[in-house]
Amino acid sequence: MENYFSQHTSGQFNEELEEIRTALMEMGGMVESQVSKAVRAIVNSDADLANEVIAGEQEIDEKELYLDDCCAKVILKRQPTASDLRLVLSVSRVTRDLERAADEAYRIALYALELMEGNQAHTNICRQSMRYMGQEVTGMISSALNAFTRGDVDEALDVVNNDKLVDSQYGSALRELITYMMEDPRSISQAVSAIWILRAIERIGDHTRNIGEQVVYLVSGEDMRHQTANENRAEATQKAEN
Amino acid sequence: MENYFSQHTSGQFNEELEEIRTALMEMGGMVESQVSKAVRAIVNSDADLANEVIAGEQEIDEKELYLDDCCAKVILKRQPTASDLRLVLSVSRVTRDLERAADEAYRIALYALELMEGNQAHTNICRQSMRYMGQEVTGMISSALNAFTRGDVDEALDVVNNDKLVDSQYGSALRELITYMMEDPRSISQAVSAIWILRAIERIGDHTRNIGEQVVYLVSGEDMRHQTANENRAEATQKAEN
Repeated sequence: MENYFSQHTSGQFNEELEEIRTALMEMGGMVESQVSKAVRAIVNSDADLANEVIAGEQEIDEKELYLDDCCAKVILKRQPTASDLRLVLSVSRVTRDLERAADEAYRIALYALELMEGNQAHTNICRQSMRYMGQEVTGMISSALNAFTRGDVDEALDVVNNDKLVDSQYGSALRELITYMMEDPRSISQAVSAIWILRAIERIGDHTRNIGEQVVYLVSGEDMRHQTANENRAEATQKAEN
Repeated sequence: MENYFSQHTSGQFNEELEEIRTALMEMGGMVESQVSKAVRAIVNSDADLANEVIAGEQEIDEKELYLDDCCAKVILKRQPTASDLRLVLSVSRVTRDLERAADEAYRIALYALELMEGNQAHTNICRQSMRYMGQEVTGMISSALNAFTRGDVDEALDVVNNDKLVDSQYGSALRELITYMMEDPRSISQAVSAIWILRAIERIGDHTRNIGEQVVYLVSGEDMRHQTANENRAEATQKAEN
């Protein structure tokens, strides 16, 4: 299970694919660190950390473009088999989800600075949920990338399931915030800020889940992307019929 | 400017590319219709329309998988040149953005049903903004697809600029909602519902903008994807330094 990339492909590709794998893991590590820093910046009102996240965003953008370029080159130079092509196209999708997760981290960092400027930082509500959800999604990024490079379906399914936990934490935090606003209308503007931050963390979970689903698709050939939608659809139809 | 696909590529590809182009335009038309129906469902509390959107989602998912498959096949069967490959990889990105826009429409439709069940529908606030933003993003989807198949950079840049308008409408509606909640705390739960719906429409705008940026990249080779991020970054750095 150590390296799905080299296990999987014909000899001639190995060097290029190894380069792609290394770049992808580097990008993943960078995104994980951005997310972790952004959440700590907002929870601890730490302007230095927020500025680090803002400064680090460009490098991630460059890494995405570099990886896109590597993937296109490998397709052009070689004549990939169907399964090699599937692997390379998957890398392209995974980098896109990583970049979008980093984008949410970047927005959280900007938001942290804004709240600090407005002196709202220390009254920030829902810190516990932010910290908890933040830790959860940071761990998920790392697992999703490991699952991808090892072709480990079990670990990928764990990521998908963890995202359901994050979604349900997000739902609880939201209900809590609405109660809070109703009890104390002066807290509304803060509560709306908290909603954005929780939502951004929840989105990071969604992007990471996409990576997990990509692994399942790649290894087992089973497309999970629209399964959840189908489950929801069945539920909704049932509701509508009752 | 009529057909960038056939203009662009060598003879042998034409038939397959024409098939991809047709499927992409069909998918685009379906997504446009889903978005338009979902917004009307929520604004007019129309359960039938909401159910149509829910029923229509599966067909879009299938179209996305079909298009992914077509793109992989065309790469495998032919040995694409760099620019042909760029075109095919772009189709793959565009379908993903379309599918995600449709996903937001699907969520709006589910939400519309939920609100109607709770008898909240007729007190729904911010209807004007929803209708206006909804019309705007529906039009953008159609323009973005036209721009893509014609390789029309000017129309693509219009889409990108229209998304900025949608974002600013969203910002105004949000400020209005916060004032509303402060003045009448009994409206909080409705206002939070309105925030989700506006946010979903705004996300559809973002996905459509991605398509516009993809056209600019494809035709002019200039990567806009990270330009906005760079502008924001420059602003944020300036803020932090002052």
